[in-house]
Amino acid sequence: MSLVVCLLCIMLVPLAAAGLALIHQGLGRSRSAAHAMLGTLCALAISAIFFVLFGSAWAGVAGGPVHSFAAGGFHWDWLGAGAFFGHGVSVDGSDPAGLGRSLTLCLEMFAAGLAAMIPLSAGSDRWRIGPICISSALLAGFIFPLFAHWVWGGGWLAQLGTTFGLAGFFDAGGAGVVQVVGGLMALAVAWIAGPRKGKYSDDGVAAAIPGHNIVLVLFGCLLALVGWIGLDSASSILFGGAGVEQIPGVVVNAMMSASGGALAAVMVTRARYRKPDASLSANGWIAGLVAGSAACGMVTPVAALDTGMIAGLLVTYMIEAFELQLRVDDPGGAVSVHAGAGLWGLIAVGLFGHFADGTRGNHMLAQLVGIAALLGFMLPLIYGVNLLLNRFEPYRVDGNGDWQGMDIRELGAGAYPEFVVHADEFVPR
Amino acid sequence: MSLVVCLLCIMLVPLAAAGLALIHQGLGRSRSAAHAMLGTLCALAISAIFFVLFGSAWAGVAGGPVHSFAAGGFHWDWLGAGAFFGHGVSVDGSDPAGLGRSLTLCLEMFAAGLAAMIPLSAGSDRWRIGPICISSALLAGFIFPLFAHWVWGGGWLAQLGTTFGLAGFFDAGGAGVVQVVGGLMALAVAWIAGPRKGKYSDDGVAAAIPGHNIVLVLFGCLLALVGWIGLDSASSILFGGAGVEQIPGVVVNAMMSASGGALAAVMVTRARYRKPDASLSANGWIAGLVAGSAACGMVTPVAALDTGMIAGLLVTYMIEAFELQLRVDDPGGAVSVHAGAGLWGLIAVGLFGHFADGTRGNHMLAQLVGIAALLGFMLPLIYGVNLLLNRFEPYRVDGNGDWQGMDIRELGAGAYPEFVVHADEFVPR
Amino acid sequence: MSLVVCLLCIMLVPLAAAGLALIHQGLGRSRSAAHAMLGTLCALAISAIFFVLFGSAWAGVAGGPVHSFAAGGFHWDWLGAGAFFGHGVSVDGSDPAGLGRSLTLCLEMFAAGLAAMIPLSAGSDRWRIGPICISSALLAGFIFPLFAHWVWGGGWLAQLGTTFGLAGFFDAGGAGVVQVVGGLMALAVAWIAGPRKGKYSDDGVAAAIPGHNIVLVLFGCLLALVGWIGLDSASSILFGGAGVEQIPGVVVNAMMSASGGALAAVMVTRARYRKPDASLSANGWIAGLVAGSAACGMVTPVAALDTGMIAGLLVTYMIEAFELQLRVDDPGGAVSVHAGAGLWGLIAVGLFGHFADGTRGNHMLAQLVGIAALLGFMLPLIYGVNLLLNRFEPYRVDGNGDWQGMDIRELGAGAYPEFVVHADEFVPR
Repeated sequence: MSLVVCLLCIMLVPLAAAGLALIHQGLGRSRSAAHAMLGTLCALAISAIFFVLFGSAWAGVAGGPVHSFAAGGFHWDWLGAGAFFGHGVSVDGSDPAGLGRSLTLCLEMFAAGLAAMIPLSAGSDRWRIGPICISSALLAGFIFPLFAHWVWGGGWLAQLGTTFGLAGFFDAGGAGVVQVVGGLMALAVAWIAGPRKGKYSDDGVAAAIPGHNIVLVLFGCLLALVGWIGLDSASSILFGGAGVEQIPGVVVNAMMSASGGALAAVMVTRARYRKPDASLSANGWIAGLVAGSAACGMVTPVAALDTGMIAGLLVTYMIEAFELQLRVDDPGGAVSVHAGAGLWGLIAVGLFGHFADGTRGNHMLAQLVGIAALLGFMLPLIYGVNLLLNRFEPYRVDGNGDWQGMDIRELGAGAYPEFVVHADEFVPR
Repeated sequence: MSLVVCLLCIMLVPLAAAGLALIHQGLGRSRSAAHAMLGTLCALAISAIFFVLFGSAWAGVAGGPVHSFAAGGFHWDWLGAGAFFGHGVSVDGSDPAGLGRSLTLCLEMFAAGLAAMIPLSAGSDRWRIGPICISSALLAGFIFPLFAHWVWGGGWLAQLGTTFGLAGFFDAGGAGVVQVVGGLMALAVAWIAGPRKGKYSDDGVAAAIPGHNIVLVLFGCLLALVGWIGLDSASSILFGGAGVEQIPGVVVNAMMSASGGALAAVMVTRARYRKPDASLSANGWIAGLVAGSAACGMVTPVAALDTGMIAGLLVTYMIEAFELQLRVDDPGGAVSVHAGAGLWGLIAVGLFGHFADGTRGNHMLAQLVGIAALLGFMLPLIYGVNLLLNRFEPYRVDGNGDWQGMDIRELGAGAYPEFVVHADEFVPR
Repeated sequence: MSLVVCLLCIMLVPLAAAGLALIHQGLGRSRSAAHAMLGTLCALAISAIFFVLFGSAWAGVAGGPVHSFAAGGFHWDWLGAGAFFGHGVSVDGSDPAGLGRSLTLCLEMFAAGLAAMIPLSAGSDRWRIGPICISSALLAGFIFPLFAHWVWGGGWLAQLGTTFGLAGFFDAGGAGVVQVVGGLMALAVAWIAGPRKGKYSDDGVAAAIPGHNIVLVLFGCLLALVGWIGLDSASSILFGGAGVEQIPGVVVNAMMSASGGALAAVMVTRARYRKPDASLSANGWIAGLVAGSAACGMVTPVAALDTGMIAGLLVTYMIEAFELQLRVDDPGGAVSVHAGAGLWGLIAVGLFGHFADGTRGNHMLAQLVGIAALLGFMLPLIYGVNLLLNRFEPYRVDGNGDWQGMDIRELGAGAYPEFVVHADEFVPR
């Protein structure tokens, strides 16, 4: 029964992608809006294909065949060894026991797509579509499956409990597996592509470049909520051991986290700038969903609300720090919203989670090991892969391409050919 | 099994909110579009939080603990006495019997959000975000739970049958509980905030202020349909006693009602103005959904079609009456669409419903008692609460704020900063 | 259990309509955008009503009462003989065995709506709303049910196996029943309405008239994906004999087909014009979904990917051929995307399908018989009906209506009254 619920929840997950796509393009400029959407479509398509053909084999399933090695007296399960070319999916119904395996592949296919589209927001208005495609293939074909195996596929992070007597690293909804991995990718892209022209003046003042369609950004938040409800519910069942009777709580918690995140951002921006900021409030909403997804079925609604509020608070300051102190131009705030709030969500599991077994200290330690793996291993891997790729296929559009707009430069046509847009208020440099 | 269907249907309900949000902002002005969307996000977030923390305890569940008093020889069950702070949700699965209670809380959380966002449409372009937040908290924290308990929580309206030998007031999909309550709130807001500048000239002529994005309004109708299908199906199971085999009929009926409402509005406006009016047709579609939700699982498709057509007809005339005769400026037609069509839907239950027990006269009488409670008790309560709140936190933006646009005034930035909009054709006054 | 999954999948199908509506309007002009959306709403509403009241009786269900005749020594089951006026829907739960019948009606109601809205894309910017309504009524009331009965209702095409010892014509997801029927309707409309003014110059050069909102077009693709997942899953269960354990494969296959279609279009347009074309890529995505829906639960993910890629390739060339060689002005590419890719999908069933019984040759032959019925019988019928209707209710707006814009001409108001649009770059003729 719970697998049937899982199946139907998976069908809602693409709505999270649809919502994020609207947010990403809306926070970018109108001259690059079609490019943002087509880039998203390509990233989703390529990541689905590469995940199904290759990545799913390496992501594996808990209890399935694995690659492992022995070191330090322990057995390290580091990569799945499933079937390539989508043979993990049962299509003729001859293998009813394969339902769990099929569902895992299906859910992870969409999850890989979500991870792959996150960096597009950080690379808005300048990241070329060629490297978007190759980078998505690498992410969904290998990078995402690697970490997904460690956590969702029964790999070494999931086995911290049995190996070291700690507790298993817990990330039911993918705050780490999907959001932090995607967010670190976004950080690499923003670093490599560099800031947009006109973002920073010669004397170092950052210009505010407002999003071009806030209505679609905020609408995207509502749509993403439904997708996240599907994602959290399905992965709670598959990877968090939740039963059907816990799923209403997952739904309530998703709404609590999103609400807390948005309201915290509204309150902080209102307190600081006297007026609430719509874009940051949207980011707070998504940050709440991101942070809340780690522990979704394991906490009370009040804890989910707290998780979301802290995420919204954190993200508001983090976006400013990246923009002003670190001088990383991340138009959609993807690094803060996905990596930042995702990391906080992993900690929140340790703080708020209700676990049947293991002490809170052990759980917290396991979460910190997982975070160390993300920052100590995945971030260098991700940065290295993107840096290498950038040498062969330059990430950033050349010349004044970002000034001209990615739509004209890369697609040859604008998104809104009939609408009159303002002459540019940002002087090209 | 039916609770599993209910659970999955609940996940679709936020799409109704997403659709209505697009309709509301699209029927307003472009200079207030970001404000309309952010206001909706805040209303949904705050109402979810206040409902889960407080309201859900008072809404209660049928058969749960209640507050009651004895009067006139009868026992009046007037308020639930459940657990505060979301303890009604079972998160660790230790209480499998709590699934029905968790589902009720989860569905009502979204239903309270729908009710809370309805008044935003009536307050478009002038209602400030501060009072939007407080008013949403009051609605979802107390006003909505009060009436929800009476009908969905086994309160005195639901018990009219056992108490007085009538029949229970029947409102499976929330035409009264959600739509009329939200619609009466909209009426109070429109009254208190007053008409937009430029709406009525000195000699009393009403100016037509067209919506700024009809594409998103009509798209919102299609999205709202899916949300309503979820809402009607889930609440038919939880509150209307429907089994799974009746749900396909609920889906067909929702589509019939919406279709009837839209076509009636198309035909009426075509007959009266020689051309169909797109905005009123969208209102007719939603009015059909609203009216049809009361009896959704209890009528034939033909009756659902009739219900929708009459709703569409009614709303077209009612919107005009409010605008021209009553001089209430309700930019989105929220009062007519939600309160007007909702009341008609409650009557339609009595006219068309197939009930296993009770005479049609008894059922009709019960519906009229419920309507009397809405108009005789809830309306004064709602108006009073909003009037009081208006004294402390003025509803209407001051000075020429509605002229300047709520986006600039309250958020400091517009929704579409890159698009050129027409200089204003409505002279400020 | 599988019927419960089917029920919930059906609820997602309207999202396909919502997505297609956005694509249709976005590929048209801004001056006709409200008309495109209102026309869609009307087409969906009227087709739902006429299908439920009349068409569903003729579509029938496998094993239900039928009209048949004997010819050539065989028994030809050509039309259903079910109950009119929606009596096929069980509303009071007294007929639990009617769940399958209710689900069929419910799914086909939405499928008829999808078929009815396809021609609107071919008739963009010039097809009047009056004939849109009548034509939708005829399509959903009789034309669609006729072919739906042959395939989904156990009619003669489904019985090719038992009658002639071939195999049954197989079209689980409606590539033929919904998409080709709708696409042939689109062809008839494009033929009858003629090209838009300014599309072809006197010396025969075709002008490119770009879509006015590519963001919503590409967003519509993502939304349509969810609707298609629902459609393919529900109809695989009802009409393809799939069990729940095959549905994850259906979801994966839908994503593979869409991805393959979009990427093929990206690659072809990039190779030919040096830059990928966003509109054609969107068409490739939908073409992949269309082609993949025929065999959805019967093929491996790799075969689904191949099906989608060939569909994307085919559609890119086919759209050009219709526009330049055949001089059919089809603004949204509806004929190629729905009829073209749909026909290819029917062939792909024969090429790639995994069938438990029958030789591949027999299955391929059955598919060709179905295609012959579509092109040899349905196309003349559809063309004749539309030609006749055009005599009484002219399809094309008169005078310079398409130049002025359908919004002003037919609705009296534009979709975006506050936005400034460019003066026209296409000289009227």
